[in-house]
Amino acid sequence: MTKKPLGILGGMGPLATADLFTKIVTMTQADCDNDHLRIYIDDNAQIPDRTAAILSGGADPTPAMAESAQKLASIGAELLIMPCNTAHYFLPRLQKQCPVPFLNMIAITAEHCRQTFGQAPAGLLATRGTIQSGLYTQALADQGTPCVEPDESERDLLMEQIYAVKSGRTNLNRAAVLQMLAHMKARGAQYFILGCTELPILAQMLGLEEAFVDPTALLARRAIEACGGRLAPTGK
Amino acid sequence: MTKKPLGILGGMGPLATADLFTKIVTMTQADCDNDHLRIYIDDNAQIPDRTAAILSGGADPTPAMAESAQKLASIGAELLIMPCNTAHYFLPRLQKQCPVPFLNMIAITAEHCRQTFGQAPAGLLATRGTIQSGLYTQALADQGTPCVEPDESERDLLMEQIYAVKSGRTNLNRAAVLQMLAHMKARGAQYFILGCTELPILAQMLGLEEAFVDPTALLARRAIEACGGRLAPTGK
Repeated sequence: MTKKPLGILGGMGPLATADLFTKIVTMTQADCDNDHLRIYIDDNAQIPDRTAAILSGGADPTPAMAESAQKLASIGAELLIMPCNTAHYFLPRLQKQCPVPFLNMIAITAEHCRQTFGQAPAGLLATRGTIQSGLYTQALADQGTPCVEPDESERDLLMEQIYAVKSGRTNLNRAAVLQMLAHMKARGAQYFILGCTELPILAQMLGLEEAFVDPTALLARRAIEACGGRLAPTGK
Repeated sequence: MTKKPLGILGGMGPLATADLFTKIVTMTQADCDNDHLRIYIDDNAQIPDRTAAILSGGADPTPAMAESAQKLASIGAELLIMPCNTAHYFLPRLQKQCPVPFLNMIAITAEHCRQTFGQAPAGLLATRGTIQSGLYTQALADQGTPCVEPDESERDLLMEQIYAVKSGRTNLNRAAVLQMLAHMKARGAQYFILGCTELPILAQMLGLEEAFVDPTALLARRAIEACGGRLAPTGK
């Protein structure tokens, strides 16, 4: 009853937002509706593209993100999360304009990697924006974990597949994705971070069976705990 | 760009809210994030139980629903929807306290039934609260469509299965549900309205293959159109 209301700064992208929301609901131990957290969502798909802003001088998404955060806070959210890895590049600036704290999905993921895989090298699957920003590489390095990044053609493939999921298109390329994973393993990756919120959806669509770390699921779990909800026994 | 922001008065229940949200996202024709609607959600699982309020003098859910509606309006929602059939019992009172219009899922469904099935009798699957309120029976009668209601023991079964979905429990009873559908067909039902937002989820979990009308999907479709979004070609 004294649970903290959670705010989801969403729309980056909408399907990833729905995926995170569903994960939080299904990972919460609830015998009736009233055991669930109160969750406010602003699914704001009009936020400028984060990768374009980082790589090619596209419009700054921070003002739109701050507007969403303020709206969520104004109706009662006391803790905020964002189901977009790339958006975390703007988090330090966003937090200065936001009255309530954020959970940082990247930091939570890097901590989990160290706890679970120790110093084994992680393979990073993500957008160009996330990779080139160094967000994960730095967070992993802070935990002493080496990071294997995709090469140029693998980054092209990842962007293409991520935007295919975003648009709801089905032109997914399973063979090319499998080849990329094999090449990254040959370069040392012992497991893979699904470092874009569309990638857990892609991995499920393609039926991939690797050792994956899903930052969205880690974020869902941490958010439930931080807001005073109970984790379902099977929730991980 | 001039799309109308949509508000979802959710939490009744949370999984149904996530289901409606996912349907709206996947049924929207979008080549990029920015083609999606802006959607505000208040997933408020603390709203008192609607069935208990209708049948046994439980707490009135209207004040909590009005508070949610006002919050959604305060951050910009211009049209509201609720993924809870039973909650529509309180809609006439709620609308008087709410500054923005609602789409009425029950009315949309009854209209669809007449357009699709003419005067063929509909079988109603719903909570006790929805059935005894006469919400669907009246809306269908207004369209000239007869309604076959579940008998007492079938209502017990429906309540048990609906609350199993709500709590995320897996003690579903496929054999009993199939028997209920057969009995209702023997009493004249030619198709079934999944008149509780947990029932499309149940039908999917159980792999049922009847002629079903899913009010949540109809509401998602109508909301996309009403807010100026485009329907995906396969969206129905």
